[in-house]
Amino acid sequence: MLSVLGLLRDLDSDRLSIQGVYDRVEEALHRREGTVRAFAHLDLDGARRRAAEHPGGAFHGLPFAVKDIIDTADMPTEYGSPIWAGWQPRADAPVVTLTRRAGGIVVGKTRTTELAHLHPTVTTNPHDSSRTPGGSSSGSAAAVAAGMVPFAFGTQTAGSTIRPAAFCGVAALKPSYRLLPTVGVKTFSWHLDTIGLFAPHVADCAFVLAAITGREVRVDTKNFGAPRIGFARTHRWEEASADTRSALESLARRATARGAMVIDVSLPSLFAEAADAHRIINDFEGAESLAWEYDTHGASLAPELRKALDHGRHLSTTAYDAARSTAHAARRKFADLFQDVDVLMTPSAPGAAPEGLGATGNPKFNALWTLLGVPAVNVPGLRDGAGMPLGVQIVAPFGKDRTALAAADWLERTIDRG
Amino acid sequence: MLSVLGLLRDLDSDRLSIQGVYDRVEEALHRREGTVRAFAHLDLDGARRRAAEHPGGAFHGLPFAVKDIIDTADMPTEYGSPIWAGWQPRADAPVVTLTRRAGGIVVGKTRTTELAHLHPTVTTNPHDSSRTPGGSSSGSAAAVAAGMVPFAFGTQTAGSTIRPAAFCGVAALKPSYRLLPTVGVKTFSWHLDTIGLFAPHVADCAFVLAAITGREVRVDTKNFGAPRIGFARTHRWEEASADTRSALESLARRATARGAMVIDVSLPSLFAEAADAHRIINDFEGAESLAWEYDTHGASLAPELRKALDHGRHLSTTAYDAARSTAHAARRKFADLFQDVDVLMTPSAPGAAPEGLGATGNPKFNALWTLLGVPAVNVPGLRDGAGMPLGVQIVAPFGKDRTALAAADWLERTIDRG
Repeated sequence: MLSVLGLLRDLDSDRLSIQGVYDRVEEALHRREGTVRAFAHLDLDGARRRAAEHPGGAFHGLPFAVKDIIDTADMPTEYGSPIWAGWQPRADAPVVTLTRRAGGIVVGKTRTTELAHLHPTVTTNPHDSSRTPGGSSSGSAAAVAAGMVPFAFGTQTAGSTIRPAAFCGVAALKPSYRLLPTVGVKTFSWHLDTIGLFAPHVADCAFVLAAITGREVRVDTKNFGAPRIGFARTHRWEEASADTRSALESLARRATARGAMVIDVSLPSLFAEAADAHRIINDFEGAESLAWEYDTHGASLAPELRKALDHGRHLSTTAYDAARSTAHAARRKFADLFQDVDVLMTPSAPGAAPEGLGATGNPKFNALWTLLGVPAVNVPGLRDGAGMPLGVQIVAPFGKDRTALAAADWLERTIDRG
Repeated sequence: MLSVLGLLRDLDSDRLSIQGVYDRVEEALHRREGTVRAFAHLDLDGARRRAAEHPGGAFHGLPFAVKDIIDTADMPTEYGSPIWAGWQPRADAPVVTLTRRAGGIVVGKTRTTELAHLHPTVTTNPHDSSRTPGGSSSGSAAAVAAGMVPFAFGTQTAGSTIRPAAFCGVAALKPSYRLLPTVGVKTFSWHLDTIGLFAPHVADCAFVLAAITGREVRVDTKNFGAPRIGFARTHRWEEASADTRSALESLARRATARGAMVIDVSLPSLFAEAADAHRIINDFEGAESLAWEYDTHGASLAPELRKALDHGRHLSTTAYDAARSTAHAARRKFADLFQDVDVLMTPSAPGAAPEGLGATGNPKFNALWTLLGVPAVNVPGLRDGAGMPLGVQIVAPFGKDRTALAAADWLERTIDRG
């Protein structure tokens, strides 16, 4: 994989030229894209040319990829949907402009499930092409995992960033709600949609977030020490695979051995209710957001999307308002869980990437944290018995993105030490 | 003006045909649009044809107008900006689709200030063409005031709905934050942008909101009785015109005489801080939302918009986070003001519409309520010494849109009785 920090170090020390970076990208694309199929649109030559113009900023011309539900002025944005075939926005989404300002160059648009819902795209898992890369940000996770780009943007409304990151074995960050603007991103649920960020390592994600936002969130610049971790198995723990459960239990022991404090944290029942509220908010708002698609092109929507929109359309405003109240109460209560710990540790997904390309896996270990709007990080490095990536997720209170990233980075290094 | 409820009553009793409604619209356009210039795009014939197909729903084919920062699939959407000249979205914004579902027909797109910021458009005030109609939803307010449409959509980020409604003498509602989806609306500030709604009378606004959302918010279906009103002069009271102050003082006395309870309510200093926080959030988020326009077409932005974006771009994330914390604290505290009253009464604008078309007036009596995300209604009917409309504003706690509408409707009827 192409670590952002690694490439920048090599560029800085002249061990690598920016054209050399593009050579590596080209080589990875040549070798893997035929099978992985991460990109809906690609312009390597254009990106190369722009990189030759010596953009400065934090990224010095590094290429990045953008999920194809995020607007780009110079590439089509088709939302993974035939309804939007050939659609060309006039403007970049702010997250794209801000990254260009920091010297990043868009190399391509990555494949998404249909309208960022469940219906899969053609992307395959770089670790096993018979398996799903997860979704909805399928192409972004796969492109980073296959070494095609150092970083990529995705989005998450339920588990669309953390789950594919776990399945593809890369780091990912779902930042605090609205830390990155979702302007210019196709809306599904306005209270849930969040821009996500993929890179090889946690420290890369932190660097990218810092470069775009100007916030002090880097974790490679100082030593944060061992974190205090609350092991939150959640009420869904028994639904995780045996591999996942034993990998997390073992990691908790290793973290303790390395100096972290790890204690069990059980979530009050309000948080199980909040996880249920997610679907109501998701489907109710999705039915409004995609009202035009539903009314004018309803027959061409995938059955599972149409079913969700039908569900949302027939929910009462009373049910929706109650779900929002539950979400609000859970958000207020969440900080109370952190009196003795800095972060929570919990699975990123029920297990490794499922076999087959007909489904993208289940977001059951993600929806709650999205609903709460809190930062969540996928820590890469764990494997199951078959050598497939497993994800462990670090969650922190709202606005504590650096706390989440620092603990995740510490945990990633702990995993790497074996 | 063309009251929504009045037209529907006349249609229902066969005193008027739907084509007769369009005749009235055509007559008003013919007589007034040359001076008022409310529309950026108009398709009366197309709307007439669609109305002839007997759409059902709550609106039975009534025409409506849409501010030109809200996407429409069958009409251009140019944001009042040369950067977006000729822009044709593929989809309708959800608020447009939902209104079409309810039997409404888009007759045209109404003029907006540049990107819904301060730089004025060519629209004039229907009560005096030498004066501004207010902004940014200039055309929507003017089109309703000139009897060209029974209702129109606008937006409000500071005072862009309530202020033009006050200047043009029409009713308007800024609903609770996100009660109407802002999907498909050009974003300025995602924590502030709100869809607004203009109609001749408060009860019309309530009817339209009910028809679109399916919520029980109509105020013409039962008697809500006289409200308990908190007269909130705010720390800006001395900045209101003498006419405005005396009109509101006199209205408070008349309301009391008609059976309302009216007590003085003074806002804690937190709310003055919150009003200041508005500008920080507005400009910081505006600078991100319009990053593409700034970077690629910066020279063609109006100087006042460019200045706001420059201000926003140089604000620190610390200042922005502090402003958001202040907003959050004010939202939590706001409900405490309503222990003895149902609603607050406060000016809609500093005075009548200012002379000249070079500026759209000041949102100083609006920004706080937008920041709080609470429902605000402009009550029409008051006039100054020159016969120009003055606005009184009713504000209620978050989610209490019907409470605000019922009190505003009661107050409108009190004004009408003289």
